[in-house]
Amino acid sequence: MSRPAIITLTTDFGSADPYPASMKGAILALNPQATIVDITHAVHPQRIEEGAFVLAAAWPYFPAGAIHVAVVDPGVGSQRRPLALQTPHGFFLGPDNGILSAALPDQTRQQATHPSSSIRLPSQIQAVLLSNQRFHRQPVSPTFHGRDLFAPVAAHLSLGVLLPELGPPTNELLALPPFRAAIDPEGALAGRVIHIDNFGNLVTDVRQDQLPQGQLTVELKHRVISGLSRSYAEGQGLVAVIGSTGFLEIALRDGNAARELHADIGEPVRVFSTG
Amino acid sequence: MSRPAIITLTTDFGSADPYPASMKGAILALNPQATIVDITHAVHPQRIEEGAFVLAAAWPYFPAGAIHVAVVDPGVGSQRRPLALQTPHGFFLGPDNGILSAALPDQTRQQATHPSSSIRLPSQIQAVLLSNQRFHRQPVSPTFHGRDLFAPVAAHLSLGVLLPELGPPTNELLALPPFRAAIDPEGALAGRVIHIDNFGNLVTDVRQDQLPQGQLTVELKHRVISGLSRSYAEGQGLVAVIGSTGFLEIALRDGNAARELHADIGEPVRVFSTG
Amino acid sequence: MSRPAIITLTTDFGSADPYPASMKGAILALNPQATIVDITHAVHPQRIEEGAFVLAAAWPYFPAGAIHVAVVDPGVGSQRRPLALQTPHGFFLGPDNGILSAALPDQTRQQATHPSSSIRLPSQIQAVLLSNQRFHRQPVSPTFHGRDLFAPVAAHLSLGVLLPELGPPTNELLALPPFRAAIDPEGALAGRVIHIDNFGNLVTDVRQDQLPQGQLTVELKHRVISGLSRSYAEGQGLVAVIGSTGFLEIALRDGNAARELHADIGEPVRVFSTG
Repeated sequence: MSRPAIITLTTDFGSADPYPASMKGAILALNPQATIVDITHAVHPQRIEEGAFVLAAAWPYFPAGAIHVAVVDPGVGSQRRPLALQTPHGFFLGPDNGILSAALPDQTRQQATHPSSSIRLPSQIQAVLLSNQRFHRQPVSPTFHGRDLFAPVAAHLSLGVLLPELGPPTNELLALPPFRAAIDPEGALAGRVIHIDNFGNLVTDVRQDQLPQGQLTVELKHRVISGLSRSYAEGQGLVAVIGSTGFLEIALRDGNAARELHADIGEPVRVFSTG
Repeated sequence: MSRPAIITLTTDFGSADPYPASMKGAILALNPQATIVDITHAVHPQRIEEGAFVLAAAWPYFPAGAIHVAVVDPGVGSQRRPLALQTPHGFFLGPDNGILSAALPDQTRQQATHPSSSIRLPSQIQAVLLSNQRFHRQPVSPTFHGRDLFAPVAAHLSLGVLLPELGPPTNELLALPPFRAAIDPEGALAGRVIHIDNFGNLVTDVRQDQLPQGQLTVELKHRVISGLSRSYAEGQGLVAVIGSTGFLEIALRDGNAARELHADIGEPVRVFSTG
Repeated sequence: MSRPAIITLTTDFGSADPYPASMKGAILALNPQATIVDITHAVHPQRIEEGAFVLAAAWPYFPAGAIHVAVVDPGVGSQRRPLALQTPHGFFLGPDNGILSAALPDQTRQQATHPSSSIRLPSQIQAVLLSNQRFHRQPVSPTFHGRDLFAPVAAHLSLGVLLPELGPPTNELLALPPFRAAIDPEGALAGRVIHIDNFGNLVTDVRQDQLPQGQLTVELKHRVISGLSRSYAEGQGLVAVIGSTGFLEIALRDGNAARELHADIGEPVRVFSTG
């Protein structure tokens, strides 16, 4: 089998509980050769959009064929569907609550007009409902599908099981709109802060490809930043930078922008051309 | 060698110090093929019972033969004994201070009448004192047996060394009483909160198999919950659920029960039949 | 190839962002067989000296030939040079800002008279500038050399690429002075707290080999400790111990010395002989 047996985990389980390790045990019990990589377990509890952001920022660097398991799952044990997607890049497993948006191209996510819109998958993405109990750990706890359903299914995929064996196909999915700033009536980009990183850098939903030509001005919290810096170390005080995830970030040279500006997730940001 | 070389680590070392990585280096220096899995390093400093709870909740999902190293070790460098146990499920290494209770069936732990009771091991569990210095890293720091004693011994076990080679047998162990609610004079289950998870769910020591038949009522902090929910998403407000570790939990739908109730570890809980 | 493909990571990226996982993905995309070990991602943002301390305390326990990547990199995207060192113990990759001091013997670091002194490497250590773009991930983000430059270069080294292929040699490096207490005019050791660990133990820069013969007295924050204890569990109240990293530590039996003494990094400590 040439498929690389790499399984990543993205959850809101934190670092102090037995939950991430239980998932790893359940994987290794089926495939002791699997390489398991934590994307993060520090998603804020039940913040699906944050989980989708972090997974979407990390998975493109993994080898094609990797298996990405995302468990931010407030509806575990309810009627929400457990799914697996196969894309040209790899496999994505998780509850059908929006978290799997991380696997989708922006073009597909644009069908979503509000959080948790039902969208149709394009033909290059296959999806199945994970209903075949042969690939689950029995009994399945109604409170922990990460351990008893998603982890074992990921292990089986890493051993060569094919997607259609896992359950019946589906081509609908709940998705979040893409991270992408809107355009306001005056033609400026009207975005928001979607992530605050460990350095206090404010990651916005303004995409590099959305930026206007010429000289830019960025406004946030009544502060004005003129022009883009190429790196955090270039410029003084507050700087606007295209970060490593392809989004516009506001950073504070030698400091923490989020603390300095008292800015939080959702804070509006405006970008316009000034020449 | 067909033994799966999986070594897990459970400690109170946190994530910022060189200690967990030093243990991993010491293992890989002896067995570069070992698969090392963190159970957690976020046990509160020196809380032995918490470490035992987390390890006991995670290890059953690992393959048989896995090697579990538990280092919550306030007595390191004193006369407390470093031990290894071999059970039908795998190996368990740690100081003889109660943490190894995680490896024991409840029936065995019931010999313990108070924290750190000396108990006798049943015949299906072998234990040895880790006194054979040939399997230690020299010199052994009197402040870090995790790195210099337990990690190298785990690596040697993963390479096929047999338990009796590690030191002389012992069949006594310090153990913690099992996590299991008492029964009060009125016939109700009188338990307590033993763990608060990342979601604020209050994990109690009331076992699923202890629950009375019929309709239940749960009391905690002057709040009353009627009946069990099947999942966190079922019901409204405070719910009582059998969690994924087999214990009764109190959770708050879309919230944090620990914060809402100002409940802490040790908080009493009462469960009785109302029909 | 007999070189063990072990790659360690030391960063200030925290646990909630996609950055550490992106580095791991970039490594596994080139070498799916690499064993990746986190030293820590919890260095305080941009504290280069702290990163160097933690890495220097952990790497000696890894097998020779391991590849250690250290990314505490406030100057990313500026003119600071990305380097790789090869020492008798292994490879060390990181920005030339002092963090690579972790790889150097104290004797070499003693050339550094202040933070970020330029020093000359001894002949047993080779260094190269990582300028050969063939071993980078394209395009290289000016804000994340960890993912696009250091991680891929580490992966190539793990696959057998030789140091000279990575770029031109250099024999100068920015270094931090060694962690080593000074001697004050009265002949006492005049040190400082360089690390506070998860237990609140105060790790000082007083080296075991610096301690005077005979009875010792340790002074810190107007508290006086007489004599050394062999372990944390020996003695009562505040104890002075040679910790597992070879430095003098102040600890509080069954407590947290940092909290008890309100001591922080940089706090002066004095050690003198009293007999």
